[in-house]
Amino acid sequence: MAEATTRRRGGGGAARRAERTAVRIECAKFIERNIPTFDILNEEALEIIEYNAETVLEEIGVNFPSNPGALALWREAGADVQGERVRIPRGLARQLCKTAPSRITQHARNPERNVEIGGNSLVCAPVYGPPFVRDTQGGRRYATMEDFQNFVKLGYMSKWLHHSGGTVCEPTDVPVNKRHLDMLLAHMTLSDKPFMGSVTEPSRAQDSVDMCGILFGKDFVQENTVMTSLVNINSPLTFDDVMMGALEVYAANNQACIISPFIVGGAMAPVSVAGTLTQVLAEVLAGIAYSQLIRKGAPVIFGTFVTSIDMNSGAPTFGTPEASHILYGAGQLARRMNLPYRSGGGLCGSKLPDAQAAYESANTLNAALMGGVNFMLHSCGWLEGGLVSSYEKFVMDADQLGVLHRLAAGVSADENAQAMEAIRQVGPGGHYLGCDHTQANFKDAFWRTQLLDYKPFETWDEEGARDTQALASARVAKMLAEYQQPAMDPAIAEALRAYVAEKKASMPDAFT
Amino acid sequence: MAEATTRRRGGGGAARRAERTAVRIECAKFIERNIPTFDILNEEALEIIEYNAETVLEEIGVNFPSNPGALALWREAGADVQGERVRIPRGLARQLCKTAPSRITQHARNPERNVEIGGNSLVCAPVYGPPFVRDTQGGRRYATMEDFQNFVKLGYMSKWLHHSGGTVCEPTDVPVNKRHLDMLLAHMTLSDKPFMGSVTEPSRAQDSVDMCGILFGKDFVQENTVMTSLVNINSPLTFDDVMMGALEVYAANNQACIISPFIVGGAMAPVSVAGTLTQVLAEVLAGIAYSQLIRKGAPVIFGTFVTSIDMNSGAPTFGTPEASHILYGAGQLARRMNLPYRSGGGLCGSKLPDAQAAYESANTLNAALMGGVNFMLHSCGWLEGGLVSSYEKFVMDADQLGVLHRLAAGVSADENAQAMEAIRQVGPGGHYLGCDHTQANFKDAFWRTQLLDYKPFETWDEEGARDTQALASARVAKMLAEYQQPAMDPAIAEALRAYVAEKKASMPDAFT
Repeated sequence: MAEATTRRRGGGGAARRAERTAVRIECAKFIERNIPTFDILNEEALEIIEYNAETVLEEIGVNFPSNPGALALWREAGADVQGERVRIPRGLARQLCKTAPSRITQHARNPERNVEIGGNSLVCAPVYGPPFVRDTQGGRRYATMEDFQNFVKLGYMSKWLHHSGGTVCEPTDVPVNKRHLDMLLAHMTLSDKPFMGSVTEPSRAQDSVDMCGILFGKDFVQENTVMTSLVNINSPLTFDDVMMGALEVYAANNQACIISPFIVGGAMAPVSVAGTLTQVLAEVLAGIAYSQLIRKGAPVIFGTFVTSIDMNSGAPTFGTPEASHILYGAGQLARRMNLPYRSGGGLCGSKLPDAQAAYESANTLNAALMGGVNFMLHSCGWLEGGLVSSYEKFVMDADQLGVLHRLAAGVSADENAQAMEAIRQVGPGGHYLGCDHTQANFKDAFWRTQLLDYKPFETWDEEGARDTQALASARVAKMLAEYQQPAMDPAIAEALRAYVAEKKASMPDAFT
Repeated sequence: MAEATTRRRGGGGAARRAERTAVRIECAKFIERNIPTFDILNEEALEIIEYNAETVLEEIGVNFPSNPGALALWREAGADVQGERVRIPRGLARQLCKTAPSRITQHARNPERNVEIGGNSLVCAPVYGPPFVRDTQGGRRYATMEDFQNFVKLGYMSKWLHHSGGTVCEPTDVPVNKRHLDMLLAHMTLSDKPFMGSVTEPSRAQDSVDMCGILFGKDFVQENTVMTSLVNINSPLTFDDVMMGALEVYAANNQACIISPFIVGGAMAPVSVAGTLTQVLAEVLAGIAYSQLIRKGAPVIFGTFVTSIDMNSGAPTFGTPEASHILYGAGQLARRMNLPYRSGGGLCGSKLPDAQAAYESANTLNAALMGGVNFMLHSCGWLEGGLVSSYEKFVMDADQLGVLHRLAAGVSADENAQAMEAIRQVGPGGHYLGCDHTQANFKDAFWRTQLLDYKPFETWDEEGARDTQALASARVAKMLAEYQQPAMDPAIAEALRAYVAEKKASMPDAFT
């Protein structure tokens, strides 16, 4: 098998020794839903939105500024291109989207961690993008590379997290033009879960592809998807040339991109849910169609990141009913296009990992599961509207992802689950704790937290009356103390470090 | 109209003056769902559970201990009665349940606060039963009558709460045999929302009916439902004679009861979801059938209170995936019987109103909405597995009930919601904050919290960096300070006080 040989090249004794000494961590397989999706829009509403989205593309169009290559491709495909405005005849974008695959296998360097994105799957990835971090000890502060590495380690240790993510925080102590190299190196060496590539410059996307060539083997990368990267649309209706440049690199190299409107509702889209869904669909149709113009069959994900806005202060708000409406509706639109769907996460506006953070996050996590999300960025660690990666919230949310796993498994009605013998055995007025059925099944009967407190009041009080943040703080410390780097072929690790060193040496530092 | 005249009897000048000086509070109508329910069980699983429940009734049976009247009714109806065990032939219980109404109108003394229980409705009632209270200032302590009155006041002031509830906390400073009188008086005079009656003795149920006779008029009570009371089943499969005695009083007087298994899964029901649902259905079938034997057409609600258990410690756990599975499944079973459904709430095991409390509560609140619950007891204020009524959590949960209202409204796709003119007007790269559509719609576009923090970090930090508990504590103080008693006919208030005084004087104090 090409994969195995590629990964073992240069392996030999050192690699085998590394594998032997590695601690095996527990990691759940990505979620495969065995429950229905929650469909909030009826057929009529769906058809109206789909019709209107085509009207937007045809009559208003989308902008591809500073991107003559994109404009040429669109003209060739039959669009009406005037200046940077691209008007797409009704039906053309949807037609072009049909070559995008409905399901993506993203490979990890440890094949057990491969994920499927699409169909009934739900893949959970951590928070993406915050310039700040917060923990109980250090408070709120600018994120550093050490923080970044810590979050990658926590992600690797988190049983219910399937994906290492991308910019788990912005390492602000590394120059802007070099930090993607250190970030990739951390994901590649400190974890063996799948990860995301850089999108902040086309050249950085290329670095991501090249480093994956070292990690997986160049041929393997060309034939398989080893990265899923986040390409945001500048809503409304604008496709930024830097993001599009990254998309061009990834699509050309068969790497997956999430094509995602990033919308604060009421500011970057209409204040109404149906209007926002119309714009989301128009943007995603144009973006995914463009990916297929670059390379037919390029793996892409229908992305939707929509928050609502507090119209009094202008602040973005999270975990709100309007955001859930949009999440549910966009999921239906994505499924009708037979495309993988990204949305959701443990989103919140709170400054602290407190009750507000948890209500808002739980609202979104539940909606994401019910709404048929296939790739959930920001599954854990998101705080303060995405300005902060929180250590404590990372492990809190990650624990709740276990709830989603079990919910998604659905309800068995097989003979063991029916438990008729148990009901007979116990009878009226009895209790089930000791009965045969309970003894045979109790170990797997109930999801169990690794974090939350179930102790009697008196015990809990004696142990310091700790709140969830304090429990989470202790769990973070324990996980980081127990962390052990997953085994890796030393030759590959060395080649990756050499690539990073060489690239860094070739550029002056840039901090903006 | 009988209602209006009855309520105004003895009114005159004093009543009108009271009405004029009353402060009107904002109160949302009960929720009418405009979204689908989430159905987790397929037809095959539903049929298996329904078949098995009938087998349980027929072959195992249920116990009605110390209740010769009930046994006689069952024998007469065709059941096989041996000792206190009642075995019910397949199909009989379901047949008897058919005379129960599918929808109940519960009247409040303020007709604007009447609620509909059944169909697409969701009525939210507060926490029920805790012997302790907690707030930031006083910590955890035994509940008193003053606490009880405070919670009734908070419930009255809570916009998204439709129901005043019942035992919002146990007023432990009042003798056990007299506290129902003070509790009823508080609900009747401090709030004008609908409420629950006493179930701890049949005579206390009768007191509840008699006091309602004073409040609403005796004839009105006989013709209308003015209380919904909570009758728990002693799972497994046992119908306690005290609770049944209360049910007998209420059913005979046309007052509604929730017939509710109270189950810690793994202890009082099998460890499996399908097994628990089978037992729940068997118990509810027997309980509701019995209510119809007492009085055909008696208003009843299909109740389900199921938590899971931590099999390591035996502690009940809340907001877990298994509890959600049961909530969803029981909702389907209730709808197939065309009966109103009670489940859900802001349930949690946490000792504090912290992130754990909020994750667990949000999980259950969302499931209750999606699962088609019609009457949600414990909607707000529940803490520590139901041992504590929390002041802060009361206002936190009550705020989240606003999210449910908006979620339940569904998504409009009318011309205004489509917002096509807004998308045209703004165009690629613009923003929507100032556009006509936003100006016309922003006030009602987004649900808005009355509690949570949306401020910029700096402002929030300057204002004391308060967490949700601190914000909630301030809101509790503000609400209690602003509370004004709703207008009431002084003659009725006096008659109620006289009834309570007389009843109290007729009995020695009892504290157990």
